[in-house]
Amino acid sequence: MRAVLLSGGGGGARFARGLAGVLEPGELTVVGNVGDDVEVLGLHVSPDLDSLLYTLAGLIDDERGWGRAGETWNVLAAAGGWGGEDWFRIGDLDLGLHLVRAQRLREGAPLSQVTAEFCVRTGVATRILPATDDRLRTRIVTPAGTFGFQEWYVGRRHEDEVDAVEYESAREATPAPGVLEALAAADAILLAPSNPYLSLGPILAVPGIRDAVAARRVRCVAVSPLVGGRSVTGPLDRMLRRMAGGTTPDFVALSHKGLIDALVVDEADLPAEAAVELVPSSTLMRTRDDERRLAERVLEIACA
Amino acid sequence: MRAVLLSGGGGGARFARGLAGVLEPGELTVVGNVGDDVEVLGLHVSPDLDSLLYTLAGLIDDERGWGRAGETWNVLAAAGGWGGEDWFRIGDLDLGLHLVRAQRLREGAPLSQVTAEFCVRTGVATRILPATDDRLRTRIVTPAGTFGFQEWYVGRRHEDEVDAVEYESAREATPAPGVLEALAAADAILLAPSNPYLSLGPILAVPGIRDAVAARRVRCVAVSPLVGGRSVTGPLDRMLRRMAGGTTPDFVALSHKGLIDALVVDEADLPAEAAVELVPSSTLMRTRDDERRLAERVLEIACA
Repeated sequence: MRAVLLSGGGGGARFARGLAGVLEPGELTVVGNVGDDVEVLGLHVSPDLDSLLYTLAGLIDDERGWGRAGETWNVLAAAGGWGGEDWFRIGDLDLGLHLVRAQRLREGAPLSQVTAEFCVRTGVATRILPATDDRLRTRIVTPAGTFGFQEWYVGRRHEDEVDAVEYESAREATPAPGVLEALAAADAILLAPSNPYLSLGPILAVPGIRDAVAARRVRCVAVSPLVGGRSVTGPLDRMLRRMAGGTTPDFVALSHKGLIDALVVDEADLPAEAAVELVPSSTLMRTRDDERRLAERVLEIACA
Repeated sequence: MRAVLLSGGGGGARFARGLAGVLEPGELTVVGNVGDDVEVLGLHVSPDLDSLLYTLAGLIDDERGWGRAGETWNVLAAAGGWGGEDWFRIGDLDLGLHLVRAQRLREGAPLSQVTAEFCVRTGVATRILPATDDRLRTRIVTPAGTFGFQEWYVGRRHEDEVDAVEYESAREATPAPGVLEALAAADAILLAPSNPYLSLGPILAVPGIRDAVAARRVRCVAVSPLVGGRSVTGPLDRMLRRMAGGTTPDFVALSHKGLIDALVVDEADLPAEAAVELVPSSTLMRTRDDERRLAERVLEIACA
């Protein structure tokens, strides 16, 4: 049972952990978003890949939802004291990874290879692939101007309303080695409960990836990231309302038009109608058991 | 009273702190060794400049003798876990400075400018200048081979005997802006109680700096880093014995041949004879008062 999951960080990473617990080692490939990537203090930071890695490696701070458990924050405070940028929160343990990755990237290793090396180091059997090794950056068009993703999300606390989301350099990007092969060999394709615009959009904006999903011969199942029409975290509900017109399951399904066969939605969002099969489940992942049950449910639908 | 001090880290930095406490703000310029500089995890580390900065800014860990007080070590441990180099000890607070400096250097700022910016940030009135903004690396010739300074000092725990010390790229280096001007305008030139081969040698190997000291019209006074013929820290006694033939004051004086008018030596090293004036003092700096007293004594001799 080979499954490919397209995922952002946070909820997507928890769902990936659920899948990894249900599938056999090596059966799961996760294609992660790199549109959120950012250069901080001269280091390449890949927040979504890192959330996937940390979550699957058991290093994540589950309460905070990002970064490492047992984290400290001394470097950033010191850097700020010397005039360095300190707007983007990076912990000390987290920084250890960024330093090593930045050095490997400068040595010429592609992001996919460095990510694979980190998986090997931590014994993560799930394959984590960046959507692309090329530079791709999500940009947020707002009434106040257009901003880089992290500038808007962290720097401006994602308070500006969003008129559109752009994926800079996406057209010139090529899928990272293994992405199209994994999609072609998959028995099921899954879209994580991640923001369609901010997390899945940048992945699907890479030429070839959307086409591969659209041309699938297996089922593709998405999990709605909304519960009762609201975001569990993040600004998706506001974005969907403004950009699509609403937050009911049909709007979520429409954001994946032509790409999915079924949408798993929380019971709180039913009854509802959509152009694809709607599958009720409990989608809130509070515990590891929740993650596992959701993963089992989604795989069951994907194999139906 | 304008004084220029040539200095390594450690003892040199403590002596610089003593001088800064005695002189008026702005009267002291310290020219620091950069031969120990090393790239760690892709970051430029300047151990001697940092010891000077931390000591003068009140940030140094006085007990350890290097690095910052209240330091933690989480980043290096994490980096090591991801396969990063962890042989060179860098604390988290220290790393904050290295990240900011590396970024400024990549932006094209010379080392001297970045160092000046850090002094301004911490309100250090003493001018800290690197001997050169160019790359200059101390290399240690031993029976086991030739090593980069830190590779020998930290990596091999400076256990190999030293046959010679080389200053790679020194001939192509030019003095950092302000160094020759400060020497030309000085009322006194001072050599810190630093290792002549490892700390002062690289400074004096920059063309123009040795000539400026040799051609001085003011007095130049050195402080011997030995007490009772022994190093307070580091391998100088072993080096002097092997490379020069002994550790009495005349051997220390000879290592500065033509460059000094007087050598301040610890009372434990007297009686002794040398080709320059030998001045007795208590040179061990255990307390801030010790530093201050030594500074006063040296300035007195320099103005004699």
